[in-house]
Amino acid sequence: MLKSYYNLYFSKQKAFARELKTILGFLPKHLPFYDRAFTHKSTANKDESKHSFDNERLEYLGDAILDAVIAEYLFRKYPTEDEGFLTQMRSKIVSRKTLNRVGAEMGLDDFLKARGLQRISPTVMGNCFEAFVGAIYLDKGYKAARKFIIYKMLQNHVDVHLLERIDNNFKSILLEFCQKDQKSLSYELIEQQKNDGKNKHHRQHRFKVAVLIDEKALAEATGPNKKTAEQNASKQALIKLGVVDKNGHKKE
Amino acid sequence: MLKSYYNLYFSKQKAFARELKTILGFLPKHLPFYDRAFTHKSTANKDESKHSFDNERLEYLGDAILDAVIAEYLFRKYPTEDEGFLTQMRSKIVSRKTLNRVGAEMGLDDFLKARGLQRISPTVMGNCFEAFVGAIYLDKGYKAARKFIIYKMLQNHVDVHLLERIDNNFKSILLEFCQKDQKSLSYELIEQQKNDGKNKHHRQHRFKVAVLIDEKALAEATGPNKKTAEQNASKQALIKLGVVDKNGHKKE
Repeated sequence: MLKSYYNLYFSKQKAFARELKTILGFLPKHLPFYDRAFTHKSTANKDESKHSFDNERLEYLGDAILDAVIAEYLFRKYPTEDEGFLTQMRSKIVSRKTLNRVGAEMGLDDFLKARGLQRISPTVMGNCFEAFVGAIYLDKGYKAARKFIIYKMLQNHVDVHLLERIDNNFKSILLEFCQKDQKSLSYELIEQQKNDGKNKHHRQHRFKVAVLIDEKALAEATGPNKKTAEQNASKQALIKLGVVDKNGHKKE
Repeated sequence: MLKSYYNLYFSKQKAFARELKTILGFLPKHLPFYDRAFTHKSTANKDESKHSFDNERLEYLGDAILDAVIAEYLFRKYPTEDEGFLTQMRSKIVSRKTLNRVGAEMGLDDFLKARGLQRISPTVMGNCFEAFVGAIYLDKGYKAARKFIIYKMLQNHVDVHLLERIDNNFKSILLEFCQKDQKSLSYELIEQQKNDGKNKHHRQHRFKVAVLIDEKALAEATGPNKKTAEQNASKQALIKLGVVDKNGHKKE
């Protein structure tokens, strides 16, 4: 089956299909989807009615597919964690920073360059990766996109356990820090907004919590629940104390 | 096949499965998923380690599946619209208001009540609908969830064309208004932030536009692109002029 449509391609397309196969793990069926995924708006052709044949619509689609697949992946991976934790983990995985890196590591920039794009910023790489996922979905459906995201993207390019640790131990790092210096540590709920559920942004910031060290407020932060707000506030406190940097990495 | 697992249920479960079938259009396979979707945290049992068997994890999953299915539905329905339009249309469809209404219209409140929930707010209905979608996904997979969302939710409960019109004609309503009163109408780009792509919230507000009537700024608004920012600013102007209400509906 695979071989039969491969034989239909012309030689230039064959090379493109072969290159894609090394990234995808399967032979793509409809090359125009991928072609479009690698077309940045600055290099896109426009038709008479000014419709641009760039990758931005695919980026919108791929973004949604990524979110869904990773939501389910985390749902199954962490059967006892609450939705606050799952939401936060997903944000870390689909962060610009991660997507930009994944796009670069997969070598998608070669395809962008081949279509005439000269300066490729990290963001362009991340957007291109999203568009690539959109193309896979249109070409082969949800199951294939899911497989690609889990077995190619996550398995080879994302250290989920590292991401997990990075953000989840701020409370314990801070506790350790305080115990060593014999300081008291406590948290105070400053604000709890009613869940009017109007939008996600609002939901993400419902709870506002302060960190108190020796009874003095050192930092505050918000979150979709108390636990997450406390984590976020602990991170802020650790940054102020110079224990971790802005990315949450421990300083040497 | 369907009949065979139906026969395995006990009579109480059979009644539950039958009720679900009238909403789903198919006989559910694993009832516990649905049972959980209808369990609000205030009525949920907790185990020894305080894990709550409520619907919040399913809500998180359903939310992501809804976003992906509707993203693709709109992608195909509007082949020439840009990603700004598609994103905006999707926000309208998965708005709290719409989801709350859909949950209520499907009669999901009966299931919540049957599990002991007494006061059911609109938001609880919307969240329950999301959890219901999550349950369908776990029970029958992506294709079944997609079918349910398109043929049950969208076709029976959402007037996509009405949503489309509601937000897209603010510019023309305003133009009409100005022409009638012989006033001049223009738009001015006040601010255009660089696309640092860091987060969606930022992307949604990159462009800031002012509406000028007879050369005087009447209102301003932001958007992910100029066109959308102009629409949003037009809406604000129309609200100030008393032509439409806050929901964008024309006043009598």
